[in-house]
Amino acid sequence: MSAPDEPRSHWAWGLASRLPDLAARTLLGEQVAGLLGAGPFAPLPEPSLDEARVREPRCPIPADLAAFATAERAVRARHTHGRSFPDQVRAFRGDFLNAPDLVAFPRDEAEVAVALAAAEREGLAVIPFGGGTSVVGGVAAPTGTAHRGVLSLDLRAMDRVIEVDREARAARIQAGATGPALERQLSDHGYTLRHYPQSFEFSTLGGWVATRAGGHFATLYTHIDDLVESVRVVTPRGLLATRRLPASGAGPAPERLILGSEGVLGVITEAWVRVQERPRYRESASVLFASFHAAVAATRAIAQAALFPSNCRLLDPTEALINLVADGSDSVLILAFESADHAPSARLDRALEIAISLGGRCPRGPVRRVDGGGRAAGDGSAEAWRQAFLDGPYRQSALITLGVVADTFETCCTWGAFPALHAALARSAREAFARCGARGTLSCRFTHVYPDGPAPYYTFVATPGDRDMLDTWAEIKGAVSDTLVAEGATITHHHSVGRVHRPWYEQERPPLFGAILAAAKQAVDPAGVLNPGVLIPEIER
Amino acid sequence: MSAPDEPRSHWAWGLASRLPDLAARTLLGEQVAGLLGAGPFAPLPEPSLDEARVREPRCPIPADLAAFATAERAVRARHTHGRSFPDQVRAFRGDFLNAPDLVAFPRDEAEVAVALAAAEREGLAVIPFGGGTSVVGGVAAPTGTAHRGVLSLDLRAMDRVIEVDREARAARIQAGATGPALERQLSDHGYTLRHYPQSFEFSTLGGWVATRAGGHFATLYTHIDDLVESVRVVTPRGLLATRRLPASGAGPAPERLILGSEGVLGVITEAWVRVQERPRYRESASVLFASFHAAVAATRAIAQAALFPSNCRLLDPTEALINLVADGSDSVLILAFESADHAPSARLDRALEIAISLGGRCPRGPVRRVDGGGRAAGDGSAEAWRQAFLDGPYRQSALITLGVVADTFETCCTWGAFPALHAALARSAREAFARCGARGTLSCRFTHVYPDGPAPYYTFVATPGDRDMLDTWAEIKGAVSDTLVAEGATITHHHSVGRVHRPWYEQERPPLFGAILAAAKQAVDPAGVLNPGVLIPEIER
Repeated sequence: MSAPDEPRSHWAWGLASRLPDLAARTLLGEQVAGLLGAGPFAPLPEPSLDEARVREPRCPIPADLAAFATAERAVRARHTHGRSFPDQVRAFRGDFLNAPDLVAFPRDEAEVAVALAAAEREGLAVIPFGGGTSVVGGVAAPTGTAHRGVLSLDLRAMDRVIEVDREARAARIQAGATGPALERQLSDHGYTLRHYPQSFEFSTLGGWVATRAGGHFATLYTHIDDLVESVRVVTPRGLLATRRLPASGAGPAPERLILGSEGVLGVITEAWVRVQERPRYRESASVLFASFHAAVAATRAIAQAALFPSNCRLLDPTEALINLVADGSDSVLILAFESADHAPSARLDRALEIAISLGGRCPRGPVRRVDGGGRAAGDGSAEAWRQAFLDGPYRQSALITLGVVADTFETCCTWGAFPALHAALARSAREAFARCGARGTLSCRFTHVYPDGPAPYYTFVATPGDRDMLDTWAEIKGAVSDTLVAEGATITHHHSVGRVHRPWYEQERPPLFGAILAAAKQAVDPAGVLNPGVLIPEIER
Repeated sequence: MSAPDEPRSHWAWGLASRLPDLAARTLLGEQVAGLLGAGPFAPLPEPSLDEARVREPRCPIPADLAAFATAERAVRARHTHGRSFPDQVRAFRGDFLNAPDLVAFPRDEAEVAVALAAAEREGLAVIPFGGGTSVVGGVAAPTGTAHRGVLSLDLRAMDRVIEVDREARAARIQAGATGPALERQLSDHGYTLRHYPQSFEFSTLGGWVATRAGGHFATLYTHIDDLVESVRVVTPRGLLATRRLPASGAGPAPERLILGSEGVLGVITEAWVRVQERPRYRESASVLFASFHAAVAATRAIAQAALFPSNCRLLDPTEALINLVADGSDSVLILAFESADHAPSARLDRALEIAISLGGRCPRGPVRRVDGGGRAAGDGSAEAWRQAFLDGPYRQSALITLGVVADTFETCCTWGAFPALHAALARSAREAFARCGARGTLSCRFTHVYPDGPAPYYTFVATPGDRDMLDTWAEIKGAVSDTLVAEGATITHHHSVGRVHRPWYEQERPPLFGAILAAAKQAVDPAGVLNPGVLIPEIER
């Protein structure tokens, strides 16, 4: 087979056409120089895929995969890296030395099973591949010598909405469907999944399920977990298909062991997910706080009032500035409520009342829209935020061409733990900057909130200092990750574990649960072909 | 040690003092005779514990358990049975032949570990015991010969609220705390868990977690699963303690494997749970429907409108009559909304608007209460329902003294699957009644509802016909359980699996998930001491 058309960058985030051009990157370099009090930062030109150093295949294509697998150099290169900071830096530098040896594009569940059987027979490792947008090394090949070769299993040919159940408002969707592909098909039926991770344009339903992706809703349905009704998973020992049930109390929930399994237990081929009608009513407001501390208290009060905002994103002053929703002096709480059924005015009014009673100001008042009308009224913070949200990853790639270290990390903790965690992270980052001789900033927003705590999301931007930018990144990432685990928070609220977070995941996870996961893997993947070294140590044999 | 005071019946549901007396049972017999067109049903007197046939202990108390274990006959008898229909019938008949050989009351986590170590060393099976209210044989001893004896591990000495986190609104509670015990302690802090299974008075937090108990809320927080922040579990291989996190995306959720594990992986000793302030605003209404079909459609529309009623219980005409909320000609939808923060009037109004637009009538209008006021206004359906809900299990015990077969079963399915399931269950039950030469009725309510489907709850009442009442029960229970599995529903939404549901659980559960559970058990309980034969086949050795 030959490679599909590829408008996506071979090294950077997303569409090649959307990376800021040289002029825009030059301007960005000047802005960053101002932010960091360092520089100048001049953009390097983008690398070409032709110059990339791609490892030659170490094994032939098994005969039974010939109809849907390829060893084409460009295809293998494009399946080498996810989109973590180190992935992008290595790819920018032309390093595709850890490329998979072959890439398969199964067209149905039977071909997934054939691929797993071939891998087991031929001693290949299998890396399930969806959008390839992992920011944690989730699609990287194992570097050990336990396998004869590595097969990247790209699910994107399985991209259909197979069935829609109008009574249950649920849809059966193939795992390889990207966000836009599944939303387009659902919209033919008047439905939407409304799961919008930042990677929405490229990532797939199967990837979301495998990594417990976080989505659009700031409360209530925060993770894909909350939208999944049942899953189908092909394992080396056969199919694991859970029953379509709105809920059950029959033993531990089987789908909850698949959610977050990151490809180590099987390849997700389908899921039934809960969809809904497109919201008719949308109401939003931006609340400014002179004090971040007061803003956190207000966000907590709203999260504990059972108002269920669809958006409840708190930006600290730096985040508000970077994302163009305020001038950098105030923290901003963006509140939004939506419904397909009724105007959520009472809930927004009550949330605003709480926010204002705790020190917030809403100078422009709420925006209330029905069926898309009323957009002109009120402020544009929510819209500015949405655009900045989608542009963020492109900006990270642009910063890499400038030689700037920029990354995000996220977590979740209880409300009581947050102030100490926040202070400790600022200190960790500052000390890591200093150890590298770097200048840097750390900013914070809340992406999701729960009655018992927030999901804080941090962005750091730094000069490389006196080290290579990959080493400076590793120093900062290691320091803040150590702090997350030490302060009782989680290493990830929705970016997942992959290869990047595994050292800290192993500290966070109860040791006996690690033993249970290893036993579970042994039961369904005794040869250890699936994502060796992800979540659990590679099985010795 | 000696036995604690025991106001609870040794054979029937709940407090011995609350079983209807002979006169009341005589009246109940007349009512049932009218309902079934059969009879007469005369109450037998209650049995005495002194006459019970209790197996003698087959093994001595290990020395290291002497301080907190007993082999006292009455204590062992009281740990023999749960409160399933067959449990109660056997106990009513004096059959305690499967009594555990000893009962331990650990006072802390260390003593739980000591008990598990002793069991492993001495070849005993361990049955974790909370309220002993299982209706599915969840506390029954294994009947095989693989173990030298059976140790019932009663957690009720561990009943404290250890810590309250006011910022996160969460509490750390020991597993043996019963509903009233934990609510009493939480109320000192102004909080409530608001998890009210029908067994609330007697069952424990640990039991709720082990069985994924269903609670008060008809939507949103339907199971204890939704209220658990973290768990501590003692396994034969050590402690498994999950981190206190509002949410995480770091691998499969460990606490989700403990929820529903029914004591086969470890003994739950503590959980952090999300609590809340006592609701200040309560609004409710009862909507009557001449057609059950229309009532189902209205319930679905409300469940899909994201209004989140705390109560959304639909009763068919028979259930409405039995529970004294209507005259038997209408179906009744009981709606309630509550909040500690704001009046939920807009949500109730919208739910009523939907119900009325789909054929409902609300002749008495809504009841809106603030801080306990306003109780007099409106109708008393919600209150009548609550009392009937708590009295239900006592009535079942009373019916057993009359020789009447009476039980409930519950499930969950998609909205589209419900009509066929409902019809098939009616047919199954009718045919089972006929095979037994019995006369019986089957009635239905929804206890919980989801956007994608309801959780229907069925009650059957039948004469024993030409068989022993246990055989008639088994015939009916087997028939409706076969139908549940065949129609794609679950064998249990919140009653759990235990020994009663295991044959159908094994059909419902993906076979590979069974292999995974067995592997997980092997990792933490290699000797197979914990609840052998529950959820997974007893390990052969």
